[in-house]
Amino acid sequence: MDAPPTDDDSALDLTRDAALRARARRVIPGGMWGHMNVARLPAGYPQHFARASDCRLWDVDGNEYIDMMCSYGPIILGHADPDVERAAAEQRRRGDVMTGPAECQVELAERLVETIAHADWVLFAKNGGDATTSCVTIARAATRRRKVLVAKGSYHGSMPWCSPSVAGVTTEDRAHILTFEYNDVESLERAVEEAGADLAAVLVTAFRHDVRRDQEAPAPAFAAAVRRLCDRTGAALILDDVRAGFRLDLRGSWEALDVRPDLSAYSKAIANGYPLAAIAGGDRFREAAQQIYVTGSFWCSATPMAAAIATLDKLKATNAIAAMEASGQRLRDGLAEQARRHNLSLRQTGPVQMPQILFEDDKDFALGYRFVLEALKRGVYLHPWHNMFLSTAHDFARIDRVLEATEGALRVVARSRT
Amino acid sequence: MDAPPTDDDSALDLTRDAALRARARRVIPGGMWGHMNVARLPAGYPQHFARASDCRLWDVDGNEYIDMMCSYGPIILGHADPDVERAAAEQRRRGDVMTGPAECQVELAERLVETIAHADWVLFAKNGGDATTSCVTIARAATRRRKVLVAKGSYHGSMPWCSPSVAGVTTEDRAHILTFEYNDVESLERAVEEAGADLAAVLVTAFRHDVRRDQEAPAPAFAAAVRRLCDRTGAALILDDVRAGFRLDLRGSWEALDVRPDLSAYSKAIANGYPLAAIAGGDRFREAAQQIYVTGSFWCSATPMAAAIATLDKLKATNAIAAMEASGQRLRDGLAEQARRHNLSLRQTGPVQMPQILFEDDKDFALGYRFVLEALKRGVYLHPWHNMFLSTAHDFARIDRVLEATEGALRVVARSRT
Repeated sequence: MDAPPTDDDSALDLTRDAALRARARRVIPGGMWGHMNVARLPAGYPQHFARASDCRLWDVDGNEYIDMMCSYGPIILGHADPDVERAAAEQRRRGDVMTGPAECQVELAERLVETIAHADWVLFAKNGGDATTSCVTIARAATRRRKVLVAKGSYHGSMPWCSPSVAGVTTEDRAHILTFEYNDVESLERAVEEAGADLAAVLVTAFRHDVRRDQEAPAPAFAAAVRRLCDRTGAALILDDVRAGFRLDLRGSWEALDVRPDLSAYSKAIANGYPLAAIAGGDRFREAAQQIYVTGSFWCSATPMAAAIATLDKLKATNAIAAMEASGQRLRDGLAEQARRHNLSLRQTGPVQMPQILFEDDKDFALGYRFVLEALKRGVYLHPWHNMFLSTAHDFARIDRVLEATEGALRVVARSRT
Repeated sequence: MDAPPTDDDSALDLTRDAALRARARRVIPGGMWGHMNVARLPAGYPQHFARASDCRLWDVDGNEYIDMMCSYGPIILGHADPDVERAAAEQRRRGDVMTGPAECQVELAERLVETIAHADWVLFAKNGGDATTSCVTIARAATRRRKVLVAKGSYHGSMPWCSPSVAGVTTEDRAHILTFEYNDVESLERAVEEAGADLAAVLVTAFRHDVRRDQEAPAPAFAAAVRRLCDRTGAALILDDVRAGFRLDLRGSWEALDVRPDLSAYSKAIANGYPLAAIAGGDRFREAAQQIYVTGSFWCSATPMAAAIATLDKLKATNAIAAMEASGQRLRDGLAEQARRHNLSLRQTGPVQMPQILFEDDKDFALGYRFVLEALKRGVYLHPWHNMFLSTAHDFARIDRVLEATEGALRVVARSRT
């Protein structure tokens, strides 16, 4: 151990955040809801943020962090990327939500059809869940069948048919949802058989990015089986690329596997934080996409579309995915070396630019929680059990800064075990 | 007839729009979808817009219109209101979608709880449909019952459980939806009886704003009956204030009726065009709101929340509803006078600031279509069968400009009947 043990137990000053949380509890049930509710995390995380820039976040008490969550995915070029902000501001100056779309809706649709390998057309929406739900509706309309297969534990949104919670959900909301095990061809085949002639779609995430467990790449044989079974039965292969879209492969996350979906759902990173979702489809499903009725008050807003064009263009022009991969690999290698040195067993899974970091033998996350809280005190915002997200703003210098923090954090974890 | 017949049959030049629509048809099913698809309107409407300011719109061919749709509701202070734009831009400069909410989320929640009479708490979302769906889920979680009563023909969003289209929708999606006739207490009582001990909620729009028919204010006896039946059965009264919210009464659209809902859904005008929705509830439903899991990637974005605070503050400070009512009344009176003079029978219904304008004896909308197309050529964007929306930018001068156009349009309609 070369470095002096600089880590003390002084927690972060979160005074202003605590006051805000007390106010919030009066006017928001529990003070917060959903995936950004830090009640899901060990005590010590800030809930409210004041500022964000590139890959940095400042909480309302002025503490600065390197943000390894990228807002749970939307930020891919760094917070407030100047090129995206410029394009968005220019469109906003002209018009945002008008009584019809702007020209950039057509431009963005063309750009996506050029970019996404399987896409002949697109529709736009606002939430990732709008996109997955619309894909299911289109598949049902096209096939005139009802059953949809989803992997156990996969997250496709928080609507009643797929929410991780069953509070307020009826049995009928999920009457036609059948499950299989991700990467398990046999379980998939069984589910296909169970659905029989009523199989409308197989809905699958780009990789297995379930919370609280190791991430899994789709096995090539599994992806091929999904495609083969959909082809044999006439069902739609729906790729839920909401979380991974544009981070792994601009052409679609299963392109390297040589498996193309019939329909795919995008959101999160599509416009570097501007609210937008997209449904992409092949010609076989074009007519069904015209038959269904889906819409929303802000679905044709022009600003996020201009932001999406700028985001996609910059991702292409800067070879962004390779850059995020290189940074992600540097982080993974650095952490592996640190863990070895501290005699700790880390399980690092998922694509390097969407890493999941878990400790071996840490069922109750005691080690993981200690680790992320120590990293937080050292200015790095990690997540103990949800995959994280790198952006192009996470350059080598920033990754090295992250590694300085994890070195200190792992040292504390190691010491706590002895 | 004093005025010379200046109306000629030269249609608008929509050359650039036509080229865009041809491009759009290749990459978007049908070239457009949802409520802004002008395929739902008579030929002659522009689909794509270049610019918007106050209550004016410019299509991509440079034609200028007074926008009587306000983007189907979101625009309430006029497009690009400077105070809202300033507040939104300031928040965006600091941070928008971060890895948690900004301070303004708490401020906005407090502002809404102060403003909305029945609200003890709020949650935020992105679509009006997110808000109505979440209200239903909360009602079911709280009551542990399933049945939801909705009025026949009422629009609550485009999710499978309530979409106006049934393409891709399964029977089970609507298994627990029962219907009644708006303003018909007897039909409501029958539906309540049918639901029996399984009644979770009655979901009702602020007024009857169904398309293609006269609008209806809620009869006081009907509103009182909804409240009474919910009280008797323990079901939740959910007010869908997505379309009317903040245009009729800042405290909630049924406040003048002295009927308070248990849960209410807001979106559209809440942030003058910035994408935001809100669920408001009373303390009885606070715990259920904490139990359900609803969330979305952009639900905590700070910019729309800052815009909402600025919008609400300006609506209050400027006595905006009275201003919109005065302008709406001026339009209604002016149109009534013009119609009388041209010997035409107009049915003007709905709140004056959300007017529906239909012709008597015009089942196939032949007169209505003629009227709106003639108004369009004269620089006013009307809708033939959907309620329209005024904003505070529709001042008397602009209303008089609208009336000049309708005078010419009605003259043509009158002539076409002789």
